[in-house]
Amino acid sequence: MPLEVLREPVTPVGLHYLLIHYDIPAVDPDAWRLTVDGLVEHPLELGLAELRARERAEVVSTMECAGNGRARLDPRPISQPWLLEAVGTGRWAGVQLRDVLADADVRPEGIEVLFTALDRGVEGGEEQWFQRSLPLDVALSEDVLLAYELNGGPLPPQHGFPLRLLVPGWYGMTNVKWLSRITVIDEPFTGYQQARGYRMRLDPDEPGEALQRILPRALLIPPGIPEFMTRERTLPVGPTTLAGRAWSGHAPVAGVEVSVDGGETWAEAELDPPDLGRWAWRGFTYTWAPSVPGAHVLCARARDEAGNVQPDVPAWNVGGYANNAIQRVSVTVTS
Amino acid sequence: MPLEVLREPVTPVGLHYLLIHYDIPAVDPDAWRLTVDGLVEHPLELGLAELRARERAEVVSTMECAGNGRARLDPRPISQPWLLEAVGTGRWAGVQLRDVLADADVRPEGIEVLFTALDRGVEGGEEQWFQRSLPLDVALSEDVLLAYELNGGPLPPQHGFPLRLLVPGWYGMTNVKWLSRITVIDEPFTGYQQARGYRMRLDPDEPGEALQRILPRALLIPPGIPEFMTRERTLPVGPTTLAGRAWSGHAPVAGVEVSVDGGETWAEAELDPPDLGRWAWRGFTYTWAPSVPGAHVLCARARDEAGNVQPDVPAWNVGGYANNAIQRVSVTVTS
Repeated sequence: MPLEVLREPVTPVGLHYLLIHYDIPAVDPDAWRLTVDGLVEHPLELGLAELRARERAEVVSTMECAGNGRARLDPRPISQPWLLEAVGTGRWAGVQLRDVLADADVRPEGIEVLFTALDRGVEGGEEQWFQRSLPLDVALSEDVLLAYELNGGPLPPQHGFPLRLLVPGWYGMTNVKWLSRITVIDEPFTGYQQARGYRMRLDPDEPGEALQRILPRALLIPPGIPEFMTRERTLPVGPTTLAGRAWSGHAPVAGVEVSVDGGETWAEAELDPPDLGRWAWRGFTYTWAPSVPGAHVLCARARDEAGNVQPDVPAWNVGGYANNAIQRVSVTVTS
Repeated sequence: MPLEVLREPVTPVGLHYLLIHYDIPAVDPDAWRLTVDGLVEHPLELGLAELRARERAEVVSTMECAGNGRARLDPRPISQPWLLEAVGTGRWAGVQLRDVLADADVRPEGIEVLFTALDRGVEGGEEQWFQRSLPLDVALSEDVLLAYELNGGPLPPQHGFPLRLLVPGWYGMTNVKWLSRITVIDEPFTGYQQARGYRMRLDPDEPGEALQRILPRALLIPPGIPEFMTRERTLPVGPTTLAGRAWSGHAPVAGVEVSVDGGETWAEAELDPPDLGRWAWRGFTYTWAPSVPGAHVLCARARDEAGNVQPDVPAWNVGGYANNAIQRVSVTVTS
């Protein structure tokens, strides 16, 4: 998502970030079925029309790739070289997962819910369907959806048509696309994407900690105009409103500070009202009036109500995950 | 556009390639006006509603970036490192440019039409609005549109909302997005994007030849499944249908050949009917039945009715443009 698109409260289709592990599967919506099985009393097979006939739930949710910020780590881990654009906010609609699980009637021994997708590939030497699991208590939370709609239209192919999981506040890989099967299991899932991928490790040989909730981040809309190759930016002397958006999967955003001198000094930004609900990013603004030409480094720093604050410098790790170090936007003010 | 999306005759919104020189401009559709001026008897100011009230024209058109294939050149010119994905096909609708120019009544001395966009940036040391021109005779051709619609919906921001130029068969940069002004001029436009950018040069100091029409290309949908990091592909022994799409901006596609041995031997593919019209890519299929495991390099080669054929090896040039060397897809057939 080009960062100027932060001006949009809900990201238009085609500008939301995408991470596609294998190929986008071709799905015939008439033939497609969702299987709900495993440790349930009543296994289910649901078509798209049956899902759409159920009670509709909607949530506006900011989704971020666990690898956002990877390209700023040194040495740079090999994988998608995201700078800061791997984020977006969608108006997702579908059914509550817990409603479907209630119909299936989870047995007492169930502790996790496994989601199997239709995209197939090879990773870490293993041929696999993309699979991820959730602890049962998370799967049963109110805002976890099986989404068939984005921004008022059918789910686009690249976002998981016909059905995807949506777990607000958790990193992108949690939100399994192209769902085919939901299976209740009685032990922690140890497949590739859970036990090998998406873990915080300082050494490739340690098991590491699973990535879950999104760390806080604030991003500024880069002001002025860009240079094509370098993307360096210039803007004229005079008052300008710096604006951006901030989010955290751990707790609501408590505040955002802005610096116009590369982090030497900070001032509190004004937060927009939280109109889009708990799981959407929160807008902020800050008025800046550079009076003389010169170079500036603009920064924004978010903190959440759980006390999490963005760090000044990245925390390197093997996979290049969860680098939420503060953004630095270089701008030249011209006369 | 991920190449598996070649299966779609019209590329879904969000999967069509994008090349955005500067920032995506924010446009208020109610305040926006298109100015038509320069060497015309009746300068015009048109709003979106006025444009929509005019006779509607539609064309399905394949658009390709002039830099598609750049990453395969050696040494690699510095700019967008496209492999082969910078292509897409849209169902564009709007008004014929020539209808609007007829109302403005072009004066006899007009020889080119200059298109000015709302995206502003710095390139080659020059601060500029994105601008490109067309020879008057091209601007007056039947299928050149001022498009306000893509795939049945309003033009998305990233595709030029509220209005873009569409010149079927010409490389992507011709199709100026976020139009604000159309100006008839009496000498060739010499702005950056015409006289410095988008020219075929073997030496940076020569003026070079302007890029115009899209060279022929065929692309296969890579069969089988991918490895996440390497994108290398495997598929099982047995019959499989290789499919893809081919296009040329110079003349209709005359045929496509397929090779399953890296270009040693070739066989004619079957062309789908040209249902989407002259300016859309043409589907093709070829049945392949590898009977033993092993490595293969699949290729496709398009030719057009003007006698243009894809070359085996890339033709290097300073800007890294128009590399239409044949695609090579490495696959491993497994037992």
